[in-house]
Amino acid sequence: MTRTIDLAVIAGDGIGQEVVAEGLKVLDAVVSGQDVTVRTTPYDLGAARWHRTGETLTAEDLASLRGHDAILLGAVGDPSVPSGVLERGLLLRLRFELDHYVNLRPSRLFPGVGSPLAAPGEVDFVVVREGTEGPYVGNGGAIRVGTPHEVANEVSVNTAFGVERVVRDAFARAAARPRKKLTLVHKHNVLVHAGHLWRRTVERVNAEFPDVTVDYLHVDAATIFLVTDPSRFDVIVTDNLFGDILTDLAAAITGGIGLAASGNVNPDRTSPSMFEPVHGSAPDIAGQGKADPTATVLSVALLLDHLGYGQEAARVEAAVAADIANRGTATRSTSEVGDALAAAVSAAVPA
Amino acid sequence: MTRTIDLAVIAGDGIGQEVVAEGLKVLDAVVSGQDVTVRTTPYDLGAARWHRTGETLTAEDLASLRGHDAILLGAVGDPSVPSGVLERGLLLRLRFELDHYVNLRPSRLFPGVGSPLAAPGEVDFVVVREGTEGPYVGNGGAIRVGTPHEVANEVSVNTAFGVERVVRDAFARAAARPRKKLTLVHKHNVLVHAGHLWRRTVERVNAEFPDVTVDYLHVDAATIFLVTDPSRFDVIVTDNLFGDILTDLAAAITGGIGLAASGNVNPDRTSPSMFEPVHGSAPDIAGQGKADPTATVLSVALLLDHLGYGQEAARVEAAVAADIANRGTATRSTSEVGDALAAAVSAAVPA
Ligand SMILES: CC(C)[C@H](C(=O)O)[C@@H](O)C(=O)O
Ligand SMILES: CC(C)[C@H](C(=O)O)[C@@H](O)C(=O)O
Repeated sequence: MTRTIDLAVIAGDGIGQEVVAEGLKVLDAVVSGQDVTVRTTPYDLGAARWHRTGETLTAEDLASLRGHDAILLGAVGDPSVPSGVLERGLLLRLRFELDHYVNLRPSRLFPGVGSPLAAPGEVDFVVVREGTEGPYVGNGGAIRVGTPHEVANEVSVNTAFGVERVVRDAFARAAARPRKKLTLVHKHNVLVHAGHLWRRTVERVNAEFPDVTVDYLHVDAATIFLVTDPSRFDVIVTDNLFGDILTDLAAAITGGIGLAASGNVNPDRTSPSMFEPVHGSAPDIAGQGKADPTATVLSVALLLDHLGYGQEAARVEAAVAADIANRGTATRSTSEVGDALAAAVSAAVPA
Repeated sequence: MTRTIDLAVIAGDGIGQEVVAEGLKVLDAVVSGQDVTVRTTPYDLGAARWHRTGETLTAEDLASLRGHDAILLGAVGDPSVPSGVLERGLLLRLRFELDHYVNLRPSRLFPGVGSPLAAPGEVDFVVVREGTEGPYVGNGGAIRVGTPHEVANEVSVNTAFGVERVVRDAFARAAARPRKKLTLVHKHNVLVHAGHLWRRTVERVNAEFPDVTVDYLHVDAATIFLVTDPSRFDVIVTDNLFGDILTDLAAAITGGIGLAASGNVNPDRTSPSMFEPVHGSAPDIAGQGKADPTATVLSVALLLDHLGYGQEAARVEAAVAADIANRGTATRSTSEVGDALAAAVSAAVPA
């Protein structure tokens, strides 16, 4: 019986196009020779579309996207578009509308990767960043804009419903890992209302996962440990904004955002999950074949895993690990990296 | 004519007592032989007082504190006090009531200090963290607490008045430094209302400081540069929460919070400014003479500078730099470090 992976592809802006092409190349290669068909539907979303039509994401786009098994996204954004337009109107809108409440961001220091840390140790943790609440909800506003009496507010909204589901997901992930450790990161000594909701929720859900050891760090202290002792982390659960900050830092200590993958996951599968590199559209190097597609390829691994292709996901990860370990000093183009990874995952197919 | 430094001293909890004693020792030493009298008034504030009386900061405490030239604070907080009580009721309350709108946090990698970074380069920047607004205002709240329908909100309040005054202060500091560079850190692509207020304000005030070069980083990207290229920073201006996060990270890359000083400054001098190490009360090592008082001593240098004793401040800093450069592998007690620094600043007095 032939299985189909029905993929929506939002290549987007800048290097998005280039890295997505390599991600799809590796995806095709890893399922080749098996009864799996990859069907891709490109979506024209991002800066170009906005300039042409003024649209960021229409109801039709959204309805159509909902019909796929998953979404692969390259990067959206361009300096020619006012700040916030594509972020709020497209990227965050997708995360919110498709209820991607688990923003999954693994950090692993692959052997051979240079870290800016002198003694990083073994780094292998995953950040479970809440994806649909917190300071990202867009419930702020401003009055008297542009006058000396302007007041601009941002509202962080946190619900028991929203916190509990992501906390439970994080516990389940921690329980499935060898170290079974969960670190809640917040700032409950200052943001007392939201912080205490997170804290109480973690305490309560812990009863369902008695094997999991829990600790807590204020977000400021968490940044310290990420540079002084990153091996201490196993699973981190945190809110949308703290997760944004910590995962860029986590990427930096494990070789940079050129390697950082992410999944915007809807664990209830009521809508397609979306996989994307953590990096942006990098317009300065777009179109030059300079972008490292590895983060996108690792995002494809997360996608495969989410769709039930665990073995294929593992093969992609192993290929990336081997590729990184054997990187010489020669620079390779975007497609050369993709070709190498595609060849590696095909070669790895059991005969 | 004898000048007097009239100091309120909040030694506080845990190691606060020990480090403040050394800070005062160095302060006495650096002004000794000059016509300067240091008068200190201890304030019993923190965990012990709260346990005894239930009070965090009374109107009388506050009125009395207002009468001093400056405040030296060790650390407040203890695990026996519920989270938020002393932070919101004492520390943040002081910052807000005394209008400490400039939370000044210099980061310098002293020669001889071990950094967790493999190649930190020269690090010498200062974070001007807004101290009276943003997500710290305590304007959040929660409904249906403890039920499955709980909603907990936190409100970040940002005013043109509040942003402009701290931005202007940061520009003035940047203009007075050799590199004359100011980096605004925010997240204006997501927190569009607050972010755009910050952005517009920086653009406008830049006209008054045409020599200062301005750039902008999202907070997530800023954490990356703090570990990959910290020398790029000169003056950073940012909001209360981002400043909290960035300054702990900045402390980590420059040798740890044992060395990180801070000033809660009211540049208009309508009330006393307050100087404190960035670290907390560290109850695990309290009373053992293990705490490094250097962060407090460097906070005393900021205090001296604020009160117009620039030469004395420079002497304290130089003594710290020399002490750090000559640290062997032997561990010294809190008071041994204080004694060494006190001796060094006295010895340095011009004959
Ligand atoms: C582009 C931006 C809206 C986004 C975020 O803040 O979530 C990005 O930084 C990320 O981490 O995916
Ligand atoms: C203790 C806490 C309230 C405080 C803050 O968040 O400002 C501390 O982390 C600091 O940076 O001075």
